[in-house]
Amino acid sequence: MSTPKQIKLGFVLFGAGPGYDDWRHPDAVVDASTNIEHYRRQARVAEAGKFDFLFVADSVFITERSSPHYLNRFEPLTILSALAGATSRIGLVGTLTSSYTEPYNVARQFASLDLISGGRAGWNVVTSWLSGTAANFGKAEHPQHETRYRLAAEHLHVVQGLWDSYEDDAFPRDKQRGVFLDPGKQHQLNHKGEFFSVRGPLNISRSPQGQPVIFQAGASEEGRNFAARHAEALFVEAGTLEATIAYAEDIRRRATAFGRAPDSYGLFPGLRTVVAPTEEEARRKYKEAQSLVRIEEALKQLGVPFDGYDFSQHPLDEAFPELPASAYASNRSVSERIAGFARDNKLTLRETALRSASPREEFVGSPVQVADAIQRWFESGAIAGFNYVESLPRQLDAFVELVIPILQERGLYKRDYTATTLRGHLDFAVPENRYTLARRTGAAA
Amino acid sequence: MSTPKQIKLGFVLFGAGPGYDDWRHPDAVVDASTNIEHYRRQARVAEAGKFDFLFVADSVFITERSSPHYLNRFEPLTILSALAGATSRIGLVGTLTSSYTEPYNVARQFASLDLISGGRAGWNVVTSWLSGTAANFGKAEHPQHETRYRLAAEHLHVVQGLWDSYEDDAFPRDKQRGVFLDPGKQHQLNHKGEFFSVRGPLNISRSPQGQPVIFQAGASEEGRNFAARHAEALFVEAGTLEATIAYAEDIRRRATAFGRAPDSYGLFPGLRTVVAPTEEEARRKYKEAQSLVRIEEALKQLGVPFDGYDFSQHPLDEAFPELPASAYASNRSVSERIAGFARDNKLTLRETALRSASPREEFVGSPVQVADAIQRWFESGAIAGFNYVESLPRQLDAFVELVIPILQERGLYKRDYTATTLRGHLDFAVPENRYTLARRTGAAA
Repeated sequence: MSTPKQIKLGFVLFGAGPGYDDWRHPDAVVDASTNIEHYRRQARVAEAGKFDFLFVADSVFITERSSPHYLNRFEPLTILSALAGATSRIGLVGTLTSSYTEPYNVARQFASLDLISGGRAGWNVVTSWLSGTAANFGKAEHPQHETRYRLAAEHLHVVQGLWDSYEDDAFPRDKQRGVFLDPGKQHQLNHKGEFFSVRGPLNISRSPQGQPVIFQAGASEEGRNFAARHAEALFVEAGTLEATIAYAEDIRRRATAFGRAPDSYGLFPGLRTVVAPTEEEARRKYKEAQSLVRIEEALKQLGVPFDGYDFSQHPLDEAFPELPASAYASNRSVSERIAGFARDNKLTLRETALRSASPREEFVGSPVQVADAIQRWFESGAIAGFNYVESLPRQLDAFVELVIPILQERGLYKRDYTATTLRGHLDFAVPENRYTLARRTGAAA
Repeated sequence: MSTPKQIKLGFVLFGAGPGYDDWRHPDAVVDASTNIEHYRRQARVAEAGKFDFLFVADSVFITERSSPHYLNRFEPLTILSALAGATSRIGLVGTLTSSYTEPYNVARQFASLDLISGGRAGWNVVTSWLSGTAANFGKAEHPQHETRYRLAAEHLHVVQGLWDSYEDDAFPRDKQRGVFLDPGKQHQLNHKGEFFSVRGPLNISRSPQGQPVIFQAGASEEGRNFAARHAEALFVEAGTLEATIAYAEDIRRRATAFGRAPDSYGLFPGLRTVVAPTEEEARRKYKEAQSLVRIEEALKQLGVPFDGYDFSQHPLDEAFPELPASAYASNRSVSERIAGFARDNKLTLRETALRSASPREEFVGSPVQVADAIQRWFESGAIAGFNYVESLPRQLDAFVELVIPILQERGLYKRDYTATTLRGHLDFAVPENRYTLARRTGAAA
């Protein structure tokens, strides 16, 4: 992977926070995940901080045990479209499952967001790991892991095909000659595959960035192959810098085998900071937040990547328990990583749960300490930047105010936007329309 | 149907216009249907004119013969979400097909738009009449007319059920007690029907208007029954005032049989004006616009409700032709109305095509003449208001500037908004959550 000269940053719109008890913080906006004003404010702060994109996670199955943020929240395409008008430069990346959607509808909604925003859209492709999801979509069974990735690859292939339905000069819109469309530059996809048959054309043209940017977070074997083959921005939750470097090398090996150039993709680990003007204050804030975490909520949160497994049936202060195979089946890579870490470090169930609910201590401290940690990660050469998640209310504001200027001072971060599209921010080339390319080169589209 | 005291108005976001040659007008914004600034401006003018809602039509199948507006345009949920932030009071009504979507996704996107906009969303339920649509969604055959309506009824039933997943007080969000959700007020739908099985709950709560408003345009036998049973705002394209009155009586008879109260729904015929400070100027503008219409484009436009039938194979100046049964199969009510009108009035094919491409002359004239015609229609008691479509560039502006003040002066139109939700604008009651109602009354939900 090539290392860009400067750090790229995404910001995750995550309601009052990803932790099950984050909403209990005295300063937390309790209805943040359905509060448009809260998100508008965050979007503007992130844009003032020259972030490259906003990111909205998603899932389409909940129970009463789900995270407060997941119980009640905006749908990604609608909230991002709403925020398109509140911002002018920042990218808009939404998560949508390939397992329970129609490629024609997905292609269209992202293309529409892309045009509305002047070329700022990205699609984070997920396959939905929670097995209960099937019941919301009339399916007897949730597709198996391997099937979901095969389906995702075909789904994405169709969506990207539909995004090229019109060549960039398909619409002369010549009033005098009365020519609106050049029909030779409108293309049917005529896809017939294992899961989908889609004729096309899509009823919307390309944006200034050509196509929305593809995001993905592949951790399993199939997931890594999917990411290395198809994704442009890769989310990674490997935990430590060492694990992230190993993940990056693994992805580079796979991507090279798929014939991809190193400058065509980049890695984004998550980043949660607790930063304050002094280290002492940061540590105090961190401890305060920790004190709000209830073990029973942390256990629920721990259960999520284990397909909602109920950990409360096990003793808290004994070793991380043996689990049935079903608990590892749907999100094998993340669940096995957590269980492996707990066993390797002889953590109790309580310690494992509390650790999963907290930011890494490496990013807790003074502005210079946090900037140093970020620089250390970035200069490893493994990553393109970070996807920032607030671990405390207004940490985004503190980060923009205290840390960004240091990174700018060090030449590690842009002082202003130099592009207008997400693809431009991330230094990815605009993909030429496949039919234009075919005509130009004489090859088949 | 009860007649509200004042006229309600919707405005259709229709790019450069519904006519195939509308984009050729010298003042037309040629890329209007993918121009966010154009739509933002129109939305603001409509809101300045105290319109009750913006409306976005839709279809999910095009060919190179489709209307310029349909060839390339924003998707309804994304453009309406973007416009939510550019406006503060006006309703936001989007069209989405029930034939090629998942109820869980549809429920969620409209509920999200509804929360983002503070209770201003509406769903126009359509079943997609173009038989080619099936090919974009991997279906061997487009479902038959009757099947589509049965499916639509079940789809809507599921969506409305999901919209009640949370009772209005389901989220105590009590930081001190640590209670975010009251799990007794989160409900699974557990729907199992002919077409859909959906467990629920939906992952989003209700808006201030309870549920999005249901719009529909039923013209056929099944369509009228669907509209009379389920729709709150009914679009009608009966053509003349007399036919509109007859349609309204038919709907009232059916709605009463379904046990509905007359104040729970209202009719909205389309309205296209050509208004100018003087009658002479309006007539001149009308003629200018007429002169831009090319007969070959008008024939394509005529073909739309005939499932894309190619009328160019018939002589222009002979009687409206006999058509194969397939041309009438998918949108029987509209296609038969047009053919019947042509035969009854002994119109040639050319006359039929040009007539379909033009506004009604009744609404061409001076501000007082147009206001008189609107008043005449409204005082028939058959309608709640109109769904306004621009027939010329900036006709919305002219209408707001010249006609609205006359209607206000006559007490027929509000001087300002009195509500903040779409349901409030349309005088429809907020539907009580079904589970709250059941608990209150002791009945089953």
